[in-house]
Amino acid sequence: MNNYSNKIAITTGDPNGIGAEITIKALNLLNLPPKDIVIISNKKILNTYGKLHDNYELLDIEYNAQVVPGEISAEAGDFAFRALQKACEIKPKFIVTAPTSKEAMNMAGHHFEGQTEVLEHFLAHDGQKAEMLFVSKDFRVLLLTRHCALKDVASKLKKEVIIEKTERLRSYFQNKLYIKKPSFGLCALNPHAGENGIIGNEEDNFIIPAVEAVRNRGINITNPMPADTLFIKAVQNYINGDKQPYDCYIACYHDQGLIPIKAVASEKTVNMTIGLDIVRTSPSHGTAFDIAGKNIAKPDSIIEAIKYCLY
Amino acid sequence: MNNYSNKIAITTGDPNGIGAEITIKALNLLNLPPKDIVIISNKKILNTYGKLHDNYELLDIEYNAQVVPGEISAEAGDFAFRALQKACEIKPKFIVTAPTSKEAMNMAGHHFEGQTEVLEHFLAHDGQKAEMLFVSKDFRVLLLTRHCALKDVASKLKKEVIIEKTERLRSYFQNKLYIKKPSFGLCALNPHAGENGIIGNEEDNFIIPAVEAVRNRGINITNPMPADTLFIKAVQNYINGDKQPYDCYIACYHDQGLIPIKAVASEKTVNMTIGLDIVRTSPSHGTAFDIAGKNIAKPDSIIEAIKYCLY
Repeated sequence: MNNYSNKIAITTGDPNGIGAEITIKALNLLNLPPKDIVIISNKKILNTYGKLHDNYELLDIEYNAQVVPGEISAEAGDFAFRALQKACEIKPKFIVTAPTSKEAMNMAGHHFEGQTEVLEHFLAHDGQKAEMLFVSKDFRVLLLTRHCALKDVASKLKKEVIIEKTERLRSYFQNKLYIKKPSFGLCALNPHAGENGIIGNEEDNFIIPAVEAVRNRGINITNPMPADTLFIKAVQNYINGDKQPYDCYIACYHDQGLIPIKAVASEKTVNMTIGLDIVRTSPSHGTAFDIAGKNIAKPDSIIEAIKYCLY
Repeated sequence: MNNYSNKIAITTGDPNGIGAEITIKALNLLNLPPKDIVIISNKKILNTYGKLHDNYELLDIEYNAQVVPGEISAEAGDFAFRALQKACEIKPKFIVTAPTSKEAMNMAGHHFEGQTEVLEHFLAHDGQKAEMLFVSKDFRVLLLTRHCALKDVASKLKKEVIIEKTERLRSYFQNKLYIKKPSFGLCALNPHAGENGIIGNEEDNFIIPAVEAVRNRGINITNPMPADTLFIKAVQNYINGDKQPYDCYIACYHDQGLIPIKAVASEKTVNMTIGLDIVRTSPSHGTAFDIAGKNIAKPDSIIEAIKYCLY
């Protein structure tokens, strides 16, 4: 087997989504040395959506179904899953993943919350866990819960969860970004940070105790702050080009963290998986089945995802 | 009793918060005709925090406790409550309320989620209900649930709740803003709008049925959209000074709606109560006990709240 340890592996995601199209557009625009890239996809799928200018190595994954832009199918979900598996097997330096459909993967019997969990399944060893980080420039947001129904968020959050995830976040900053003592701004779960128990008691019951435990490990973290206040400065500084007051924000759930960063960075937001040996980046949007095959999808987000791997 | 039906009544909120200070600063800056304004507060409280340049009518509410900036007390909560009651009794054209402390009001035995609910208690008749709207320029957000612990949000949302609140929102647009057919952008409850039931089933179970019922009443409303996508355009248009694509966004819960509008409008966000005979406006921040009495609180948000009543 070839050695991929210095390469960026790119999967094209769900065959019926915009993944292959934006991958082709991004690579044609970025003009990277072909030796740095390996594409994990399928010839028929790629040919459906465009033509690559350069001659990149392709690891061709079998796909016997038709490519039907916009269709959600088990075959497509299975293909997306097998491409991810292949990306993990070859142990590249980075993995860039175009969007997949959770629904299609589920139809194919692959019951994962999303690609993050698939990567964790194949890559984690020795108790490693994957964490989901969203990044644009120095505006970074870690999610404490991910693709989780809103009604389940509060019960999924626990003192230990907060401690472990914050510890993994620190490791990422220390080991990959060489920031020795990163600072973290923590969102409260409840409006007004619970207002001393009037609007929910999770802050008092376990979030503040978790913060104290985290501080005892030497980690620089705020008390849980009302999220609608905490993100004002994040967004204003991003707009003005000023440095963020914290190296990373920690959000309790998906929309709490993604609304502010996508609001200002929109298609430039990169979805990262950290905590595993291989860092994975991805656009922050989905399969966009509604515009698949129309050649109107914008590659901006996957371009940012690929660029992230170049530094 | 005087006739207040053309006046703006201003309450100064919790005596130990920044309410009186920002009210004084705002009135001194705005320089409005004293005949248009009535202040509902207390001489001792006002004198603690500053000096009004003009001679406004003051409805003096009894307050026997000490003014102790930063202290959360039952006496302070009770005062704030009685001032609101007075504001409702005199039936002014608008009510502007400086921030109160839910905790202090609770200590005084007034068990309300917030000022919105107090106003509803005193003003609602014939089945009226108060709704909470946040506004900056043409960026408007209605909350379907308000100061509600996150874990209770999903169970508080119901088909009928969505229908009724959307109907009240339409009435407000038609009767107060003279917009005959307003358009509403609806946030999904779950990430990715539930992704067809993979991440929560509230969209399928009752949110989409509610949307259909609302449309049958001739209301222009979107399907439930992933909130992190829906607010991209809201925020970008606000920053660029472009018209909003919807007259109002409808958010399922506090942080979902407040994070994006406060992120870009910050202290210019006005908190409004609609659905009652009297429209109430308020700054979108809290009592800020940590900086009370230091003469550093900024009046920007209450200035916006007062200005709203001038048009």
